[in-house]
Amino acid sequence: MRNKRDVYLDNRPWEEALEGWLHHLQTKGALSPGPPEILATEQALGRVTAEPIFAVNSSPHYHASAMDGIAVDSSLTFGASDAMPKQIRLGEKAQVVDTGDPIPAGCDAVIMIEDVHFVEDEAFEITSAAAPWQHVRAIGEDVVATEMILPANHTLRPVDIGGILAGGVGTVAVHPRPRVALLPTGTELVQPGSQLKPGDIVEYNTRVLGAMVQTWGGEPLRRSITMDQWDQLKATITSALEEVDVVVVNAGSSAGREDFTAALIRELGTVLTHGVAIKPGKPVILGEIKGKPVIGIPGYPVSAALTMELFVKPVIYKKLGSVPPATPTADAIISRKMPSPMGVEEFIRVKLGQVGDKFVATPISRGAGIIMSMVRADGMLRVPRPSEGFRAGETVKIELMRSLEEVSQTTVVIGSHDMALDILANHLRRSFPEASLSSANVGSLGGLNAIKRGECHCAGTHLLDEETGDYNISYIQKLLGDRPVVLVNLVYRQQGLMVAKGNPLGIGGLEDLVREGVRFINRQRGAGTRILLDFRLKQLGINPDSIYGYNREEYTHMAVAAAVASGAADAGLGILAAANALELDFVPVVEERYDLCIPGEYWDTPYITRLLEVIDTPEFRQQVEKLGGYDLRDCGGVMYRQGI
Amino acid sequence: MRNKRDVYLDNRPWEEALEGWLHHLQTKGALSPGPPEILATEQALGRVTAEPIFAVNSSPHYHASAMDGIAVDSSLTFGASDAMPKQIRLGEKAQVVDTGDPIPAGCDAVIMIEDVHFVEDEAFEITSAAAPWQHVRAIGEDVVATEMILPANHTLRPVDIGGILAGGVGTVAVHPRPRVALLPTGTELVQPGSQLKPGDIVEYNTRVLGAMVQTWGGEPLRRSITMDQWDQLKATITSALEEVDVVVVNAGSSAGREDFTAALIRELGTVLTHGVAIKPGKPVILGEIKGKPVIGIPGYPVSAALTMELFVKPVIYKKLGSVPPATPTADAIISRKMPSPMGVEEFIRVKLGQVGDKFVATPISRGAGIIMSMVRADGMLRVPRPSEGFRAGETVKIELMRSLEEVSQTTVVIGSHDMALDILANHLRRSFPEASLSSANVGSLGGLNAIKRGECHCAGTHLLDEETGDYNISYIQKLLGDRPVVLVNLVYRQQGLMVAKGNPLGIGGLEDLVREGVRFINRQRGAGTRILLDFRLKQLGINPDSIYGYNREEYTHMAVAAAVASGAADAGLGILAAANALELDFVPVVEERYDLCIPGEYWDTPYITRLLEVIDTPEFRQQVEKLGGYDLRDCGGVMYRQGI
Repeated sequence: MRNKRDVYLDNRPWEEALEGWLHHLQTKGALSPGPPEILATEQALGRVTAEPIFAVNSSPHYHASAMDGIAVDSSLTFGASDAMPKQIRLGEKAQVVDTGDPIPAGCDAVIMIEDVHFVEDEAFEITSAAAPWQHVRAIGEDVVATEMILPANHTLRPVDIGGILAGGVGTVAVHPRPRVALLPTGTELVQPGSQLKPGDIVEYNTRVLGAMVQTWGGEPLRRSITMDQWDQLKATITSALEEVDVVVVNAGSSAGREDFTAALIRELGTVLTHGVAIKPGKPVILGEIKGKPVIGIPGYPVSAALTMELFVKPVIYKKLGSVPPATPTADAIISRKMPSPMGVEEFIRVKLGQVGDKFVATPISRGAGIIMSMVRADGMLRVPRPSEGFRAGETVKIELMRSLEEVSQTTVVIGSHDMALDILANHLRRSFPEASLSSANVGSLGGLNAIKRGECHCAGTHLLDEETGDYNISYIQKLLGDRPVVLVNLVYRQQGLMVAKGNPLGIGGLEDLVREGVRFINRQRGAGTRILLDFRLKQLGINPDSIYGYNREEYTHMAVAAAVASGAADAGLGILAAANALELDFVPVVEERYDLCIPGEYWDTPYITRLLEVIDTPEFRQQVEKLGGYDLRDCGGVMYRQGI
Repeated sequence: MRNKRDVYLDNRPWEEALEGWLHHLQTKGALSPGPPEILATEQALGRVTAEPIFAVNSSPHYHASAMDGIAVDSSLTFGASDAMPKQIRLGEKAQVVDTGDPIPAGCDAVIMIEDVHFVEDEAFEITSAAAPWQHVRAIGEDVVATEMILPANHTLRPVDIGGILAGGVGTVAVHPRPRVALLPTGTELVQPGSQLKPGDIVEYNTRVLGAMVQTWGGEPLRRSITMDQWDQLKATITSALEEVDVVVVNAGSSAGREDFTAALIRELGTVLTHGVAIKPGKPVILGEIKGKPVIGIPGYPVSAALTMELFVKPVIYKKLGSVPPATPTADAIISRKMPSPMGVEEFIRVKLGQVGDKFVATPISRGAGIIMSMVRADGMLRVPRPSEGFRAGETVKIELMRSLEEVSQTTVVIGSHDMALDILANHLRRSFPEASLSSANVGSLGGLNAIKRGECHCAGTHLLDEETGDYNISYIQKLLGDRPVVLVNLVYRQQGLMVAKGNPLGIGGLEDLVREGVRFINRQRGAGTRILLDFRLKQLGINPDSIYGYNREEYTHMAVAAAVASGAADAGLGILAAANALELDFVPVVEERYDLCIPGEYWDTPYITRLLEVIDTPEFRQQVEKLGGYDLRDCGGVMYRQGI
């Protein structure tokens, strides 16, 4: 098989690749809608008309009274006035009608019931004349038989269903939903819910891609997992081609040892492009077999979703005779320098925050493997091919992934992360369905710097002043000068030693780290946890050099926990949540204070008042306490304020 | 029953009525979501989370290679440089890995395959050191076990499904879709598809309302038609209440002889408001029975859709723990004076056209019974209660019913209407799925005036110059001065006498109108058809006074046709389409020219070039010719141009 491997990928601009592929597909007839489907009108919501719809009957189909009142021959009423009221007797040319009743023969107008005064049971008086055809809905006022109600290629909305039925049309011809086969391939893939071994990858990509297809109006057909095996994959693609309009192979689209997709498509049909100049998502394959589009989508989840959007979405819409709705965009200020390789269009997921009257965009992790970067993103920033990126403060256009209304109701918290923030986010949304909380984990100092740059409404911070043993205040004074801020406590939390399940070495505290045979794993210099460790060691009189592994550094709580879980270390300092996440034991060693630092200008805004309201509820407090390792004695209390 | 009739309705501001109703419902617990539904994650697209979702496992759940390459103990690589390459032998601390493979114990970094040079089968050379953890996806890089993936009250998108499955969560708790009973009531109602008698009204409202409920995330349950009969209606409401969350009664919500809804709700529960200060839609009933919202929706289709949107939509979203997406809006210029009653909030459907760089809003028919006004509308204009309307040229905010992209691709045709325009609209959309044609029927002179005011891209006109026998040109010169325009012919069409089926009086032409016993029905003075009639009568030397009914005037082709169809007249002049619509016979009497008048500034824009391209296709021409009564000998030809 090795000779079938593509080692070099193309690097074409994606628009050019797409255009060439669509052009090729067009000539093969692969983009035309399939034969129309006939549906009952009331079942056709959201579908696209395949033919124009012409009215079969008029509506109304008779002259109808538009009011409750009296249908009259208008000539009987001429001359009536306040000064000279006119009496009319009920009869052939003056009949009581309700709204919707046919106008009786001989009548041509309706007088509203409010405008008549009955002088006896069968006679009434009026004080003004009725104009011919007043309050009459003439035949065809709404729909005229034979007129076109809607053209072809129109996506049906609720009111359209009314218009069509008013025109007497009981069935409509719609374009069939394009059928899209989604073929997960890869020996390492396992279905969701499987017991996971190292090396297993949960196959959720085709679930995401299928949901995307559904959103666009197509019908996804997900197949079972195919091994990275030439003949198996060939058989799967060949059989899928018989049943669907579009085949999506995920993944094997790159140039690895087991990436056959491109060679296979080439054997069965044509590869138009293998590799486009985008990041992530480069190793995409645009092909065609037997007149049908076949596309190889890369395996990383962000690459997969992105290339699906760029390449498969236009195909589905074309096959629906429709055009994709425009993605809403908004201008935002880049919060920090964002370099990007030249020659490649990079797609960067960003969080947006309305800070003051502008939106600030902050990039989220760029990893192609991080699906949560899509879940958490508010928008996508494209860095064009000729660009080397953006300078901080530049105004850029963001393609929105959440609505601006939602974004503008989002409290942006940047800084050190704590599980209590997750719980706060959840309760916030429960109490205020329009509000959200977004939290970005950049560490305590990063949070204070974000306040300085005007990028957030609030920062989570747990910075110990080694001199005073107090938290945060001296750092705020140093970093933010005399800028008005309020410091509110969220929680006190335990930092502790994470050790293997069952604590086999019987570690009871920091003193045990110097014991023979105990391998420690540390956090990087500058981390709040590292500062805390050094402070406590000094208090306890322990020389850091006597701790084996003191100089081995990791950058997150989770990395430390993972080192312990994998057996590479015996103990590391961190928070209970990280220990719980990897099912480690936890030996509490020191309590620290975790505060929210709030710039004065947001103190009295809903961004903050809503948070404080939620923090005050028993539901929030109980759920945090249930996590363990927390003390809420000062929760919601003001620890410090300056300039406000 | 008459004593149960409400004669006077409230006239409350709708926001106040809504707020009072929601508050009442809130205290009854009627707005809380129902008990959560548990769904497989991949089935939950579009549903709203009822609980926060916490990760069960980390992703990756092991340290994984992020690249195809060689996993190494990074310390082995230290010191390698271009000048001093380093050789490494495959073994425990240097192992080939593919993307996604676990990092073997003893290794802590990956070198990309592109960066190694194999010097023999089992040994390779590198020219730079590997940083610890480079190209390694650490445990939890994407999702950390126990972290909150999503909060409650979040509407699930495709990427969310990926995030949830990455966190190992196979099922999610979602809010149940609110169940909404839709009760059509009215003795006059018949199901779509029924043979129609005068007085029958096709029950399509609950189909529209049901589709709206579906769009908002609820589950509509449409019931069969209930007669206007107190006990029947009572039984229907009572039984619906047992099965659903919201009951919608349509209609009987007004104060007519057979409008029982309000009295019934009052008997069974509480009516909070009956009648709000809106137009259309005033007679709405906001009630509550047994802790459930019950609402009476007026019967006219526009009123029904509008009150559903104002009152039922917020209830459904509240029961979903969610907020309705904001309706996109745009600024537009009012094309003509738009008076509106003070004290009432009026909702006016408008067409929008991008004319130059601004959007122009033109009101469509205001009739509450005209569902096509909703189908054709691009947006809704609200005239606030304290306002008496808008002056021409005022800038107003329009709530969009079609996207601005779609609007900006729409060719706006205002003037006299012809069926060929419908066919043009349809073929335009077929050839250019992003384009549409909107046509407003205001008569030929109205069209030229619209050009004068800059409200359209093109006007349909058939104005005969009685002096010269030529069409349109003298009117253009008079009305538009020397403004650059191009006049393009669309069709020649037959005007003729519409007569009863089988032509019982044997009418052969205009000469027969003077015959004893022939009752004519005329068009109003100023109508193109009237001008044409008078011109022909003069040519034929017929004295109008000798025609019985010459002074009976109707305002549209359809009204004339209806008069003939109902037997009130024996003949009227009009176009074949109107005769066809009411199944009348048609005696051609004169051919007239129907042109498109195009202002110079649009002549070379896609608004017009696309039309001309479509007009030129055989498909368009064949379909027009098939209608009958048309001659396309000059179709697409320039009849006249000035200043361009």
